[in-house]
Amino acid sequence: MRNGSTLLADFILMAASKPLAALDGDPMAVEALLRDVFGIVIDEAIRKGTSASEKVCEWKEPEELKQLLDLELQSQGESQEQILERCRAVIHYSVKTGHPRFFNQLFSGLDPHALAGRIITESLNTSQYTYEIAPVFVLMEEEVLKKLRALVGWNAGDGVFCPGGSISNMYAMNLARYQRYPDCKQRGLRALPPLALFTSKECHYSISKGAAFLGLGTDSVRVVKADERGKMIPEDLERQISLAEAEGSVPFLVSATSGTTVLGAFDPLDALADVCQRHRLWLHVDAAWGGSVLLSRTHRHLLDGIQRADSVAWNPHKLLGAGLQCSALLLRDTSNLLKRCHGSQASYLFQQDKFYDVALDTGDKVVQCGRRVDCLKLWLMWKAQGGQGLEQRVDRAFALTRYLVEEIKAREGFELVMEPEFVNVCFWFVPPSLRGKKESPDYSQKLSQVAPVLKERMVKKGSMMIGYQPHGTRANFFRMVLANPTLVKADIDFLLCELESLGQDL
Amino acid sequence: MRNGSTLLADFILMAASKPLAALDGDPMAVEALLRDVFGIVIDEAIRKGTSASEKVCEWKEPEELKQLLDLELQSQGESQEQILERCRAVIHYSVKTGHPRFFNQLFSGLDPHALAGRIITESLNTSQYTYEIAPVFVLMEEEVLKKLRALVGWNAGDGVFCPGGSISNMYAMNLARYQRYPDCKQRGLRALPPLALFTSKECHYSISKGAAFLGLGTDSVRVVKADERGKMIPEDLERQISLAEAEGSVPFLVSATSGTTVLGAFDPLDALADVCQRHRLWLHVDAAWGGSVLLSRTHRHLLDGIQRADSVAWNPHKLLGAGLQCSALLLRDTSNLLKRCHGSQASYLFQQDKFYDVALDTGDKVVQCGRRVDCLKLWLMWKAQGGQGLEQRVDRAFALTRYLVEEIKAREGFELVMEPEFVNVCFWFVPPSLRGKKESPDYSQKLSQVAPVLKERMVKKGSMMIGYQPHGTRANFFRMVLANPTLVKADIDFLLCELESLGQDL
Repeated sequence: MRNGSTLLADFILMAASKPLAALDGDPMAVEALLRDVFGIVIDEAIRKGTSASEKVCEWKEPEELKQLLDLELQSQGESQEQILERCRAVIHYSVKTGHPRFFNQLFSGLDPHALAGRIITESLNTSQYTYEIAPVFVLMEEEVLKKLRALVGWNAGDGVFCPGGSISNMYAMNLARYQRYPDCKQRGLRALPPLALFTSKECHYSISKGAAFLGLGTDSVRVVKADERGKMIPEDLERQISLAEAEGSVPFLVSATSGTTVLGAFDPLDALADVCQRHRLWLHVDAAWGGSVLLSRTHRHLLDGIQRADSVAWNPHKLLGAGLQCSALLLRDTSNLLKRCHGSQASYLFQQDKFYDVALDTGDKVVQCGRRVDCLKLWLMWKAQGGQGLEQRVDRAFALTRYLVEEIKAREGFELVMEPEFVNVCFWFVPPSLRGKKESPDYSQKLSQVAPVLKERMVKKGSMMIGYQPHGTRANFFRMVLANPTLVKADIDFLLCELESLGQDL
Repeated sequence: MRNGSTLLADFILMAASKPLAALDGDPMAVEALLRDVFGIVIDEAIRKGTSASEKVCEWKEPEELKQLLDLELQSQGESQEQILERCRAVIHYSVKTGHPRFFNQLFSGLDPHALAGRIITESLNTSQYTYEIAPVFVLMEEEVLKKLRALVGWNAGDGVFCPGGSISNMYAMNLARYQRYPDCKQRGLRALPPLALFTSKECHYSISKGAAFLGLGTDSVRVVKADERGKMIPEDLERQISLAEAEGSVPFLVSATSGTTVLGAFDPLDALADVCQRHRLWLHVDAAWGGSVLLSRTHRHLLDGIQRADSVAWNPHKLLGAGLQCSALLLRDTSNLLKRCHGSQASYLFQQDKFYDVALDTGDKVVQCGRRVDCLKLWLMWKAQGGQGLEQRVDRAFALTRYLVEEIKAREGFELVMEPEFVNVCFWFVPPSLRGKKESPDYSQKLSQVAPVLKERMVKKGSMMIGYQPHGTRANFFRMVLANPTLVKADIDFLLCELESLGQDL
């Protein structure tokens, strides 16, 4: 420390027999603040935020919202009353993803038990790396992963929670290449032959992001054709493998998808597993979206063959509503591959002379150091609902999907893109001016403009949110996602009537 | 859907005009549950969890803890009373990282405003990718990053919150190689010459984990010597660069550290920036731990030269206590490098025909898809404390460090490893039987056994937690971290007396 600052240090130190001002060290004030905040959360985020009679969003243009929020960080602190006002504003202007008319993403709803688990997680603020500082969560993560693996069909294996499905998918790629070429960890990709991995054109974009990030390059991703329904075609996979080999690449991984992002398609896992077995390729299943179907005895056939995979990515924060983020990477491996591939034995964290079994320090399985606790929210929700309760949710989402599909077929102005096999329902709303004009040359171009206009209207009104996208040669269509466990038929009716109402002048 | 299940779907659907059982759709029951849980959190995690008169941990052997927690997930759900009991147990057996005697990691304490922000974040459960579903947080993240950049010394630039400092460091590596070789994204590392990056032997282990994950291989990490104090030696960096070039590698990145994990050392950034400038290398500063010192006018000289970096990793969840995780990657770049390097333009999420400025959809800057909101907790805490309040925290941590150092020097049986320049204080507790025996041949070996024994005793007693590690040729020593803003001199006195008491028979 420099001389000039020693005096200051002494000065500060004089005060250091007492805690700092503000709330530090004043337990009563801390409790009072948190009780107030919690009251606001209950009123604004939970009661209003999940009530169909409230708005799902409160649209503001960015510049106006900046003004309203007064975002700038200042030198002076603010009063508790100002802080509480800020909490109200943040909630007020945020989108209510727990709202029954939030159909915009692959997650929706606000499970109270999961939320309870998340609040406890935050209050305990620990990192998942050692038994020393996360004893409950090290054991709990193991148990939750074991349960998920059992649903895949494995009575042994390994796994870890990752910060999202994209990173789970990257883990699978890294593990697959390490298993084949352990040298890669030390010597890098330059020591290896050119590698090729295979996935369908309907796969999630994280596969190509991952290939770039892991140094493989997006060219290493060989795109396999999908059928009309969006399922990978095993025969084309065979062809692509031969092609890659003929070009001098070494195939090492097939990434199948169970529940594609837009169409909700399930790749034929058994047929793909046959191909992988024949060519000795690692089979990864990106079941981030569709994995939760494994809970349903009625619908789990969609993932038949998943037990033959080497790795599975499954995000319970999607269909099960565990809350962002809850993303499991599951492995069939029992040879400690995860730790061998990612471990670096940092001596300040993973001391080998600890007084307990250091195999419990799971932090060296991951490429992160500090890692959030993502298991408690799922565990607590599961304890409350039971496997049966979660199964009912899944079954009910499928049942409501049937209801929506029948309504779409019955109503004028709605057209299915295809029969869904999952809980994504893709459809066009054809406004009055375009009905019966399918043969007109600018039909598709005009239809493409409908969804963006309706989206703008619903968001500005705050009545609901639903996503849209083009897809291949298809014009913009809506993708309805039935993920919120509190949905009832009335919400579906509302969706359709609201589109009719918003689009009647188009 | 198969025929067999159609009947079941109809059956389920009949019930679907009402919500599912349990709590789904019963707002009063949801509120009651959450109020109960919140009461438990206040009592157990916050009041008891931060009280010096309570235990910091409740040690159980893994097998016993498994029994106590009854972790298994069943088919049947449980009653609300059982769930509340589980919440109590989870908190009871978890380590209290907010406790004033938790000195074990580079984070400690429980800032009430940050916790308020985290609870709101959880209740809003959104993803940081689009303005559409995260309007408040897209703008807020931008503002918080701008503030952090200003403290680095940049009035423009880019950045993003990452899931931890390790991934921030990987981003820096990926950006540096992409900037030099944009081909890498598509064609992979095989299209590039062999690359070399440089960091000191005191760097965080995520650098080598990152090199392996990104396909560079750990061999690409050239280890630069550090001086006695733990600072990278610029002359050795020069030498290592020449060596790498002579071996046919292309240097592309230097990763300096501001606040090393064990010793708390700050690399000489200005001198390293000179080297980088001379060789046109990307300078990354891993300031995950030390970045928060930038808030202190008195101590920020430790990071002099940081404004010359190309990228900075800074974790406000460490010294500022924002809560896990809050990890910023900051960039000097103004050419949209982040999005060019990581973007993949997924058409279902980043539609270009949206009704607002799609530059606000920041999700394509990252390799994740869904991304947690990590800005609110820091923003709210900053609003409450002001920059001044946060500066006081940092200054106070330094001042308490001085106090601890003087006490260590004054007390028999304590020996500093070195004078600290940050708030890591590394020291040995030399038990009575080893005092004055430094020249004995087995001194070091015996001293090594002291810390593990004391650690076991303090954890089993629940009195405090402090980390230890060997370092180079040095025997196991304690690393005291003064990160908790509620610490007072009495906590320091307690630490020393407790070590004396725990080790008096050794």
